[in-house]
Amino acid sequence: MAQESSIPSPHEWGVGCRFSLYPMCDDFTGVILGALREADGTGLEVETDDVSTYVGGDERAILRYVCDVVAAASRRTGHVVAHLLLSRGCPGEVTCELGDDDAPPPASALPALPPTGVRAAAHWSLYPLGVTGHMDTIAAAVTSADTLTGSVHYASRLDGDLAEVLTTIGAGWVEAGAHVRHVVTHATVSVGSPTVREVLA
Amino acid sequence: MAQESSIPSPHEWGVGCRFSLYPMCDDFTGVILGALREADGTGLEVETDDVSTYVGGDERAILRYVCDVVAAASRRTGHVVAHLLLSRGCPGEVTCELGDDDAPPPASALPALPPTGVRAAAHWSLYPLGVTGHMDTIAAAVTSADTLTGSVHYASRLDGDLAEVLTTIGAGWVEAGAHVRHVVTHATVSVGSPTVREVLA
Repeated sequence: MAQESSIPSPHEWGVGCRFSLYPMCDDFTGVILGALREADGTGLEVETDDVSTYVGGDERAILRYVCDVVAAASRRTGHVVAHLLLSRGCPGEVTCELGDDDAPPPASALPALPPTGVRAAAHWSLYPLGVTGHMDTIAAAVTSADTLTGSVHYASRLDGDLAEVLTTIGAGWVEAGAHVRHVVTHATVSVGSPTVREVLA
Repeated sequence: MAQESSIPSPHEWGVGCRFSLYPMCDDFTGVILGALREADGTGLEVETDDVSTYVGGDERAILRYVCDVVAAASRRTGHVVAHLLLSRGCPGEVTCELGDDDAPPPASALPALPPTGVRAAAHWSLYPLGVTGHMDTIAAAVTSADTLTGSVHYASRLDGDLAEVLTTIGAGWVEAGAHVRHVVTHATVSVGSPTVREVLA
């Protein structure tokens, strides 16, 4: 990790994630705990409460960890959904310790995550904050999204291997963050769905 | 509904919601479908796909419907989580049909939802978009949040009756929208949790 010594810490730049894992099964607690134990959280700050899990660390490590947790959960049961909130550029909770004119935080490199063999569908939304012209930033990110398969109200649809979908989400978040300091992105990522769409049709 | 005739339609102003319901049980499909059938969606546009459900309508009707669906699901099983994305002021999907200088959309009145008897905990985040000084708007909303019990990274914690928690979220969304055209808010709302926090401690 020596090559990353110049990258500010997550605490300095507010880089991190909140995520929740929803295994749709009676043994949801066993699936969640097993998946969290199986995934490698080395170097990350992981704090779980009764609503969601905070993961602090660099962008690459966060995405790898979330991918590992969701893939591990999907191997333990059928239908699992994860909801992710990724944030960078705003340390603190209600207030922010950075000035409005501070430059965006530099990002760690984000190589594509290795394939999981798990098929995922996601609704993804990107929020460049504290700037005007946010729709242009969003449109640029969506246009270059590798796994884009459509759009719905308030979100873009992504389909692909779980790793590809999370790589797309991470890339959009970090690329928007190259010129916008505070960028948050949310995604609902579903694996193993029995395709409720057909049930409801 | 005659008194609301001057309020622009959701389609004109992009007022709506995406939400997902996660009953943590083997019969999740039955719980979801039963809850959606039981709740009264009169006057709302409801479209469900395999990832989430779009609800178009005025703010009051959306919040009442989401509250009814989550309460109905909680009566059918133990632990249920809902994730909400509420948006106003940006019609369309990737692009927006409103000009940056357009005034914020007027909101329907948001009386407190009737109590459900269901206890809820939420992580709530507010995103005023397309403006500078967004942290001031967020801080004002959080400071006046009735069910606020704490803050975590990237979110405020709310606890109370499900109806109180959703009323808080709706009020923050609409009040921020009084002076910011495009406001999105996300919330993870958990009911019936076995308190995973203790399991993990």
